[in-house]
Amino acid sequence: MRLVPTEREARVLLNAAVEPGSPDVLAEVRSRGPVPVLEDLLGGRHRRSAALLPRLAGMEAERELERAHRLGIRFVIPGDDDWPAAVDDLAHGPVLHERGGAPLGLWVRGAASLARLVTAAVAIVGSRSATTYGATVASEIAAGVAVDGAGAPDFTVVSGAAFGIDQAAHCGALAVGAPTVAVLACGADRVYPGAHRALIDRIADDGAIVSEAPLGAAPMRIRFLARNRLIAALGQGTVVVEAAIRSGALNTAGWSDGLSRIVMGVPGPVTSAPSQGVHELIRARGALLVTRADDVREAIGPAGQWTLPLVREPVAVRDRLPAEVSQILEAVPRVRPVTATRIARTAGIGQPAAERALAVLERLGLVEEFEGAWRQPDDPATPHDLSEVR
Amino acid sequence: MRLVPTEREARVLLNAAVEPGSPDVLAEVRSRGPVPVLEDLLGGRHRRSAALLPRLAGMEAERELERAHRLGIRFVIPGDDDWPAAVDDLAHGPVLHERGGAPLGLWVRGAASLARLVTAAVAIVGSRSATTYGATVASEIAAGVAVDGAGAPDFTVVSGAAFGIDQAAHCGALAVGAPTVAVLACGADRVYPGAHRALIDRIADDGAIVSEAPLGAAPMRIRFLARNRLIAALGQGTVVVEAAIRSGALNTAGWSDGLSRIVMGVPGPVTSAPSQGVHELIRARGALLVTRADDVREAIGPAGQWTLPLVREPVAVRDRLPAEVSQILEAVPRVRPVTATRIARTAGIGQPAAERALAVLERLGLVEEFEGAWRQPDDPATPHDLSEVR
Repeated sequence: MRLVPTEREARVLLNAAVEPGSPDVLAEVRSRGPVPVLEDLLGGRHRRSAALLPRLAGMEAERELERAHRLGIRFVIPGDDDWPAAVDDLAHGPVLHERGGAPLGLWVRGAASLARLVTAAVAIVGSRSATTYGATVASEIAAGVAVDGAGAPDFTVVSGAAFGIDQAAHCGALAVGAPTVAVLACGADRVYPGAHRALIDRIADDGAIVSEAPLGAAPMRIRFLARNRLIAALGQGTVVVEAAIRSGALNTAGWSDGLSRIVMGVPGPVTSAPSQGVHELIRARGALLVTRADDVREAIGPAGQWTLPLVREPVAVRDRLPAEVSQILEAVPRVRPVTATRIARTAGIGQPAAERALAVLERLGLVEEFEGAWRQPDDPATPHDLSEVR
Repeated sequence: MRLVPTEREARVLLNAAVEPGSPDVLAEVRSRGPVPVLEDLLGGRHRRSAALLPRLAGMEAERELERAHRLGIRFVIPGDDDWPAAVDDLAHGPVLHERGGAPLGLWVRGAASLARLVTAAVAIVGSRSATTYGATVASEIAAGVAVDGAGAPDFTVVSGAAFGIDQAAHCGALAVGAPTVAVLACGADRVYPGAHRALIDRIADDGAIVSEAPLGAAPMRIRFLARNRLIAALGQGTVVVEAAIRSGALNTAGWSDGLSRIVMGVPGPVTSAPSQGVHELIRARGALLVTRADDVREAIGPAGQWTLPLVREPVAVRDRLPAEVSQILEAVPRVRPVTATRIARTAGIGQPAAERALAVLERLGLVEEFEGAWRQPDDPATPHDLSEVR
């Protein structure tokens, strides 16, 4: 290391000295700059020198960067072209579980520009103990937001590469040929969980593996908590698909909410424990209920750019009849034809109006006349079952 | 009929002359009183005389009331002790599908006081094509709101006696010995659907069968639409359990909303068509997501009387540790004990603080010491699986 480190080198070392998402040091670096803070730390003048210096023993920033380079990993810092500006929002975001702050830098594996990948991005997270229902829905929503095909805006799926919903979300995007971003709690040179090595390698091919933790770092509880804030920050919103009441996905949702991003939840059976946390998010914390990719698009896209019509089934002709005509129609029997006089009386409508209505209905093919009497045609193509009209 | 009918008699005849929920005549009766309106109608001076008079041919109010009495049915009108004042809200409510207005009277079967039954009431409605999931949940919520047993307020379940969710809701209340109210689209002397004769008889035993339609009336589309407004008006809120996009239950929800009552929806799998309408109610129309009876109680009970805590699982000791102590704990290995110095370095925390933390953790039984070295005890009762801590 040179006597005066570069900003990048200072950030590498500070980032190795503190745990990911240590809000005090991150805020200090933001106000004073990384080099002075590092110099204080190394010179024993920082209040955390005693605690943190042992972690830097034998470490050289240049060597770390070289080691990363050999592994296809780079350290992206603020000011770099592919620095994702979205994570800077964390500087003004909440502190949750004593984690918070904008990261000092991000270790990124994958050739694509991280900034470009997350220009339009949505986080999709959820339970590790996903049901097949949850995994299927996560996968379909991920595929749907990643590639629309009909001209709607596409979003990069950001998740955590965990078992269950995370895996399903990444796979959904990959299945439609879209890049996806995984943020890990361990070093970017490691894989966690181990069983997801192939998935994580695949994600790195066109997308990005991102970690705030130093190379070689093992996944630990506070690193998961800090990692969740990055997932939330990188997405313009977070979709939670299945989360038990005590689930890390709800922590990610909390970050998303704290960053004024949109929190969305996919409902499931109320009898399913993995959906309980999502229902609570929607019921008591104001998360938006979403059921499909278009709902997500509508929620996180630029206002008005992608607004869905209310979902309605096609309306049948008979549902658009004026009330009086409809009332006449219902007074017309299906089997034995009756006179217009009788129909008018049954319907409680005057005879002239009834006759006008019958003429309209005949043109629509909804009634037929037999020698001055009327009935409804027996046409199975337009079933009229009272059980359907409630 | 006497030359000048009583108010009750006038309401019987007007109610037979017009279809349920004819907003113009209902509003006219409300402002002028039933007797003058009937006299105009009978005297041919009413704009609808020509259309409506044929429906009254041969009808006598006194005879209708006697016939009803023999069937155990009474005609309840405003001012009666058991008139449910809640339906008067309809006078200022919306007009939907050309239906609206406060009813002229209600035919009621069942000895209980309707007014008392609906003092605290909730409508539970939904799809006729219910899944077993929907029926089970409707039944459980109905039973739960009907009888709490732990001192929470109880509510009468109001529904429409239809197949599917309605049936499940009534049965849920009956199963816990609670009376329930069914509002029919046909006359109160009839049953619809026919297969529900036993259910409807059972409801009449302790609860009430209610209909605005005249005795003998067949169920017709506009009568279902008018009936739905009564279900919505009688409940302080409406819970929709499963409703396809095109479902009468959504019509009931629309009435409930138009009457400024609380609309609630029970979510289900997004892959289930019968849950689609409910999801749309919650997503786009602001209905409240509910998953259980207590959610419903919280929503419709008097403000603050029955407020639920947010659902949380019990928090383990290790989740309440200060961050520094937690960080030390994670740096303690599970197998081979290591020194406090090494633990302090791994955790990035000064040795004195690390030693204090280890002492705390030892008292909590979360670490154990072996000759100056520390490890986490191998205690399957407190599993520490990284897959659970995200």
